Amino acid sequence: MGISVTQKGEAPNPLVVNVSARHCHLTQEAVEQLFGLGHQLTPMKWLYQEGQYAAEESVTLIGPRSRIISNLRILGPCRDINQVELAYTDARALGFDLPVRQSGNIEGTPGCMLMGPNGYFKMDDGLIRAAIHVHMSPEDAAYYGVKDKDFMKLKVYGDCGTTFDRLFVRVKPEFKLEVHLDTDEGNACGLGPDSHCELIK
Amino acid sequence: MGISVTQKGEAPNPLVVNVSARHCHLTQEAVEQLFGLGHQLTPMKWLYQEGQYAAEESVTLIGPRSRIISNLRILGPCRDINQVELAYTDARALGFDLPVRQSGNIEGTPGCMLMGPNGYFKMDDGLIRAAIHVHMSPEDAAYYGVKDKDFMKLKVYGDCGTTFDRLFVRVKPEFKLEVHLDTDEGNACGLGPDSHCELIK
Repeated sequence: MGISVTQKGEAPNPLVVNVSARHCHLTQEAVEQLFGLGHQLTPMKWLYQEGQYAAEESVTLIGPRSRIISNLRILGPCRDINQVELAYTDARALGFDLPVRQSGNIEGTPGCMLMGPNGYFKMDDGLIRAAIHVHMSPEDAAYYGVKDKDFMKLKVYGDCGTTFDRLFVRVKPEFKLEVHLDTDEGNACGLGPDSHCELIK
Repeated sequence: MGISVTQKGEAPNPLVVNVSARHCHLTQEAVEQLFGLGHQLTPMKWLYQEGQYAAEESVTLIGPRSRIISNLRILGPCRDINQVELAYTDARALGFDLPVRQSGNIEGTPGCMLMGPNGYFKMDDGLIRAAIHVHMSPEDAAYYGVKDKDFMKLKVYGDCGTTFDRLFVRVKPEFKLEVHLDTDEGNACGLGPDSHCELIK
């Protein structure tokens, strides 16, 4: 999806706003069940956060009443939980009722079946709509006056001007300053390469 | 789509926020070309604004590279222009690049082909993403301190709290107080029957 870079006056780092299309994170165990014993994900495109990539591998998600999403991209590297991130538009098409969650917080969420060339993998839970969030370093957090797990706002200017009022803040030394929205949010505010965006405490 | 009703303290009228799924408005000429000479639209479901309805009739939209949207609902009664309102999600699936416009302002917008049981109808223009807007009476406008063609804000509370910063105001004596968002906007803010919404000048 599009990438949007905006420099705020005195900010130490440029603000990158990226739309995440639907995708999944898988354990190595799930990858092997779907793609074969010993299979390793192949990076296709490196993402903005260090070491993260869209893999060449994708899976088919089978939802209730056998509705499917094909070519669901896997993001690597493997994690210690399985998690599928869909937009509400995707979820409605599938017939899911999805909770909004921060990544990793999947307790009590719905599951689904995944299908790969080597077989099926059953997820008992892990289907979420990922809540809008911003990655940042401690340096960025100090500049914006926020701390890990705070909420701040993202203001997107333009014809479809929109303020996302509950932007969850995630601070880690290795994080580059980047907002992740989903496709519904990106489409709602008409985010494009020229969009002017601003983080507001 | 869902309907969301919120009462603001002293407001003269309840605020209704409705998601408009993709749809079209057609001229009587287009209806006859698509459905047959003399054909009249049949109301299927009355909408919140007086006299407006979703018709039983729907059409197939044929976009670039022959991608289609089937079951595109017609809203009645007939108008004096042909206009198709899609969300960006729909437009991207079709391969359109859509301008954001207020209803009726279709100059220079893309066209498409429509297909009905009686034949085709070629639209030279009229494809838009409808800008988010609010219908209100002069009484409502006075209460909120706005006038026709102003912009105000719609704040939607909840886990996906979002403020739409450019809500276009349309004032007519016959209008009932109602915000129209599209499916991307409704999904972005997670609008549901229990959503708390507020109009802000």
